[in-house]
Amino acid sequence: MQWTGDATTSKAVTERGFSLGHAGRSVPGIVWTPEDGQAPTPVVLIGHGGGGHKREPHILALARRLVRHHGIAAAAIDGPLHGDRAPADGQPTLEERRAAYRESNVVDEMIADWKATLDALQKLPELGVGKAGYWGLSMGTMFGLPFVAAEPRIAVATLGLMGTGEFGGGRLERDAAEVTCPVLFLQQWDDELIPRENAATLFGAIASTDKRLHAHPGAHAAVPPEEFAFTEAFLAEHVR
Amino acid sequence: MQWTGDATTSKAVTERGFSLGHAGRSVPGIVWTPEDGQAPTPVVLIGHGGGGHKREPHILALARRLVRHHGIAAAAIDGPLHGDRAPADGQPTLEERRAAYRESNVVDEMIADWKATLDALQKLPELGVGKAGYWGLSMGTMFGLPFVAAEPRIAVATLGLMGTGEFGGGRLERDAAEVTCPVLFLQQWDDELIPRENAATLFGAIASTDKRLHAHPGAHAAVPPEEFAFTEAFLAEHVR
Repeated sequence: MQWTGDATTSKAVTERGFSLGHAGRSVPGIVWTPEDGQAPTPVVLIGHGGGGHKREPHILALARRLVRHHGIAAAAIDGPLHGDRAPADGQPTLEERRAAYRESNVVDEMIADWKATLDALQKLPELGVGKAGYWGLSMGTMFGLPFVAAEPRIAVATLGLMGTGEFGGGRLERDAAEVTCPVLFLQQWDDELIPRENAATLFGAIASTDKRLHAHPGAHAAVPPEEFAFTEAFLAEHVR
Repeated sequence: MQWTGDATTSKAVTERGFSLGHAGRSVPGIVWTPEDGQAPTPVVLIGHGGGGHKREPHILALARRLVRHHGIAAAAIDGPLHGDRAPADGQPTLEERRAAYRESNVVDEMIADWKATLDALQKLPELGVGKAGYWGLSMGTMFGLPFVAAEPRIAVATLGLMGTGEFGGGRLERDAAEVTCPVLFLQQWDDELIPRENAATLFGAIASTDKRLHAHPGAHAAVPPEEFAFTEAFLAEHVR
């Protein structure tokens, strides 16, 4: 793992970009830590949604809140063909990304990217070896739920805006049966991308006994601030 | 409204029993207020579930938490054929209550009982005239959702463990279209009494734009402590 650029600190949160060389790929990421971090702290990994990137506003806000309010580190990486992993000639369209994903082992590659990222982060002296958390909605669940299922260090997860069916295929439902950590699952009642029944089926398939579904009216992208406040406390409570 | 017995105070919460004469009925209730209440405070009305009563443990606990943590008053009354409104020869069975309910206007009577209770409570100097809240699950929603729909003073409600269909009939779904205040709706994913789809339909029918459904694994009566903690802050935030 190599740092890219200088660390910056704003309001007690230090932000550092990194690039992780791994499996012939270069994975760009960011880690946020407390400026005055003393003891090693757990980290929450944040997966962005389709069309987003590792530093879009709601990810930056969640990461900074975890650091400032709870003294927990946060990290995000770009998904395949997103952010700094997009081709040099510009961001692909949604359709172009989907087509590329269909012809690759994108989920398994993303699991490997997250595992390598967590391995590298936990070698930093200011981050603890041990439990970690995961937060990711929509594409962040499409890639993240299989990662949570496969990674025993993940002790808590916020997932959602996803269901069985078109996007997840059969894999999500199968992998959900391997997820056993505490889970917050978010659903948008009027989601134009994810049928209500498919979201319910995926929530039902998660093996965790400690899980809760929170549903709100509105479209796919309209998750209300109340759930960002809830997830912050939820992740902090379970990641320690 | 007449006080029944003496007020008692424990850990800064004053509890008083009352009997409300109204429409030829006598409605037994309890009101909990801050011992050192200064300014008039809003009140949260708490409706118990089938087979319960106005002072069962989770109602007493919720009422005391609202008073102690938020300085808000709480009140509960017995439902028809429940608690002190049961016949002198003992508590009826579930089947006996259902049979009696089918042959009466029990929902309209309970709406009238709650309205009369709120009228009387808001005449007490320590309770404010104005907004109030409602909390009631299961039978507390069967009676309470129509009350919330009919009573403009109710500014926030926690409902749930109920659906369209057998228990609510068509009335609940129709009345839900008149509910416009912020709502927390609780669902138990493995509810043995309320089919999942019926609960979803009832939640969907609530007209409020500010509503959220929280679902947890487990049986009808297994609502976790996390939701009592959440509802306490939710009611307090919106009732002021």
